[in-house]
Amino acid sequence: MLPIQPPSVFQRRRRALAARLDRAGSHGALLFAGGATARNYPANPWPLRVSSHFLWTVGASLADAVLWLRRDRSELFLPAPDPDDALWHGASPDFAAIASACGLDDVRPLPELHDAILAEGAHGIATVPVMDPHTRARQRAWLDRRWPDDHTPRIDTLDAIDLALVDALVSERLCHDEAGIAMIRRAVEGTRAAHLAGMAVTRAGLREADVRATMERELARRQLPCAYGSIVTVHGEILHAREDGNTLADGDLLLADVGGECQGWASDVTRTWPVSGRFSSTQRELYDVVLAANEAAIAMVRPGVRYRDVHLHASLVLARGLVALGILRGEPEGLVERGAHAMLFPHGVGHLLGLDVHDMEDLGDRAGYAPGRSRSPQFGLGYLRLDRELQPGMVVTIEPGLYRVAALLDDDARCGPFVRDGSLDRERLAHFADVRGIRIEDDVLCTPTDPVVLTADIPKAPDAVCAAVGLASASPGIVIG
Amino acid sequence: MLPIQPPSVFQRRRRALAARLDRAGSHGALLFAGGATARNYPANPWPLRVSSHFLWTVGASLADAVLWLRRDRSELFLPAPDPDDALWHGASPDFAAIASACGLDDVRPLPELHDAILAEGAHGIATVPVMDPHTRARQRAWLDRRWPDDHTPRIDTLDAIDLALVDALVSERLCHDEAGIAMIRRAVEGTRAAHLAGMAVTRAGLREADVRATMERELARRQLPCAYGSIVTVHGEILHAREDGNTLADGDLLLADVGGECQGWASDVTRTWPVSGRFSSTQRELYDVVLAANEAAIAMVRPGVRYRDVHLHASLVLARGLVALGILRGEPEGLVERGAHAMLFPHGVGHLLGLDVHDMEDLGDRAGYAPGRSRSPQFGLGYLRLDRELQPGMVVTIEPGLYRVAALLDDDARCGPFVRDGSLDRERLAHFADVRGIRIEDDVLCTPTDPVVLTADIPKAPDAVCAAVGLASASPGIVIG
Repeated sequence: MLPIQPPSVFQRRRRALAARLDRAGSHGALLFAGGATARNYPANPWPLRVSSHFLWTVGASLADAVLWLRRDRSELFLPAPDPDDALWHGASPDFAAIASACGLDDVRPLPELHDAILAEGAHGIATVPVMDPHTRARQRAWLDRRWPDDHTPRIDTLDAIDLALVDALVSERLCHDEAGIAMIRRAVEGTRAAHLAGMAVTRAGLREADVRATMERELARRQLPCAYGSIVTVHGEILHAREDGNTLADGDLLLADVGGECQGWASDVTRTWPVSGRFSSTQRELYDVVLAANEAAIAMVRPGVRYRDVHLHASLVLARGLVALGILRGEPEGLVERGAHAMLFPHGVGHLLGLDVHDMEDLGDRAGYAPGRSRSPQFGLGYLRLDRELQPGMVVTIEPGLYRVAALLDDDARCGPFVRDGSLDRERLAHFADVRGIRIEDDVLCTPTDPVVLTADIPKAPDAVCAAVGLASASPGIVIG
Repeated sequence: MLPIQPPSVFQRRRRALAARLDRAGSHGALLFAGGATARNYPANPWPLRVSSHFLWTVGASLADAVLWLRRDRSELFLPAPDPDDALWHGASPDFAAIASACGLDDVRPLPELHDAILAEGAHGIATVPVMDPHTRARQRAWLDRRWPDDHTPRIDTLDAIDLALVDALVSERLCHDEAGIAMIRRAVEGTRAAHLAGMAVTRAGLREADVRATMERELARRQLPCAYGSIVTVHGEILHAREDGNTLADGDLLLADVGGECQGWASDVTRTWPVSGRFSSTQRELYDVVLAANEAAIAMVRPGVRYRDVHLHASLVLARGLVALGILRGEPEGLVERGAHAMLFPHGVGHLLGLDVHDMEDLGDRAGYAPGRSRSPQFGLGYLRLDRELQPGMVVTIEPGLYRVAALLDDDARCGPFVRDGSLDRERLAHFADVRGIRIEDDVLCTPTDPVVLTADIPKAPDAVCAAVGLASASPGIVIG
């Protein structure tokens, strides 16, 4: 609830944000935390997940709180505690304790904020719409915004003053301070334990849900919520697989995309391992191609490098590997240019990582794409979520993959041209029938010098992965099933 | 996604509901499933949990679906699949497969429903507001309802036609059919495994989160979501404790209120066990008082018995036990009448259980309270969520407890009178300092004859509980740590 890092972290961030707002001519900003949303009835909500913009500036997870940020003053407004709160929820920190932990000038009851806005008007005060629709309705009413009442407004339709706040938040949040990176590292620690436990518990006969539950247990025991819906599947070709009822068989590869978050800061890691603990030769050949792309892309994470070029280089390494295996035919550069590789690697090579697993994706492409840039119309490249020059302090994922997606390979409009001109050999691909999907995803910190792979301790080399799968019964503390 | 029970189950329910609506003069109803809600950005939603009313009548978990229920026809309307769905989410069942699995007359694209409403008008068509605000905005717009745009409308402010639907749903859902009870039993099976695993893993030095994660793993591996936010705490006196970072010590009692749901059908179970595997004498004395109240209340779950009397009888048994221990003083009947027991047992003895863990609580007290009845103004009794005569097919929880809540015991307005007139001996209570909170909760099916305790296999007798805690290292498949 209260931050576990010193108040100076949040004071420094607020000062920097306020200075940017000041330069943009804004009279300050109201950052709303948002509240818990109902699951099946109001008293049974989903866990509280406050707005990442609020978390970044305040550090505390406080339902329905609002930060009023001005150049010389940071005040937090909180709903008055219900007299029965102590009975049902136990003692909660008082306003003074919150002010101290977050380094705030004052903490006051929320109605005083509404009164102040009614008295002085909201002119010149910026805000950014939160996800929770109840809170968004409050923002709309208090600040007289013309947002649609049912969905999150498109960012590019916001008032100019709010866009200035959005741009200030993007500028500040693109590159993380040491405190943010420390939190990502803690999330990664738990995520490493989750992947090790998942590898060790894997054996034929279990279901995907067994492995997923074992992995998520390692996050939960460390009080790290899942940063996103876990994917643990023998059908890695279903990119957002949500079903986890399949039974593991010895010839399967298991793809696990699981990451925890610490104080809101995310990790995002995918590993792919053989259920039997041994890759077949065809699995190993394609795994090595993906691994080469992963490593080549990671090596490019340096200041000034355009992330789109990282994506294209990873695609080129994949294409080279696929040509060597006879699955693609032709000159790798030309294949990538025409998008032939995207028949087997349809998504982007990664994205920003921070307080959101796709950091600041609530702001559309305003965070991921540099001003003046927009999505490519080309299939595959158009799914790339990040097209900026990398800077020290940015954390990005690097997650190339190879997939045999029937819906894509059988799509004559998309795939047909590559088949007919001989670029894609579907018969040769059929020899790799025991591979449905492979993805290898790391979290990488850009520094002034070499990239730092925050997830380097999670087994990735084929032998290390197989060894971790083989640990099953030997490791104390690991579930046998 | 599709029901795992035969379509006849849902056809039967729809026929019964439609007949009631017909008698109420309604021209049919639109039951909206609702969609997933955003966590920190739209593409990172909470898991889909469709409306329980929709689940009851259709059986399938389909985002943004709408059932149009009429006396002679049941049609389901679904968003048209996105062409890229197969790429990202894999193959999904086609409309014919859904119609067949749910026993529907037709499945059609959602825009056709909107067109039909625009053409024919929504006159005489009832609906019930869902939790998901996006969908509620759609209901409001399509059916021209005057609900507030930011919060769930209060049920008693709904249009008469919608209230008739609400009452029909309540009448049908109060008593479960065999299919519903079968699903609750499956949820209970997983919940039993969770509690056994939690007991077995417990030992001093672990944190609450370790036990919670181990329990939830047993649910997750069976593909049973948590029916509600788990409570696993050494501070049982915090009734809705959400923190789980405390370290377990040998003198502690651990209270675990954890239950899974199967196809939406909930279980809700609390057990309290000693971390050391042995109750102290004071812990054992209070545990026995709670257990006696639990058993006495369960024995009353019979047709025609007013649930409020079950609550009052459980309170009486608690009061008797507390008098015997010298904590309360006086005549037990009089103590309960004046609410003295509520200083140690402030909540209700239980609630309806069904597709919601507090079944139909989205309808306020319209489900829990019989027409003409309302909440008591008395502290404690006023928290009772159910005041109806029990009927065969109802499932209720029975969950008495004893708690030393400082915020209540030190509250002079509430507790002072009982201290001053000698009813409550706080010095005597202080002898039981190693008890902070005990609750024992079962799920009980009312039948024409004896009650059926669906959770009977989950250890509850003190010796059985201690034996289950002691199992830790002996049991294969149980996590050691």
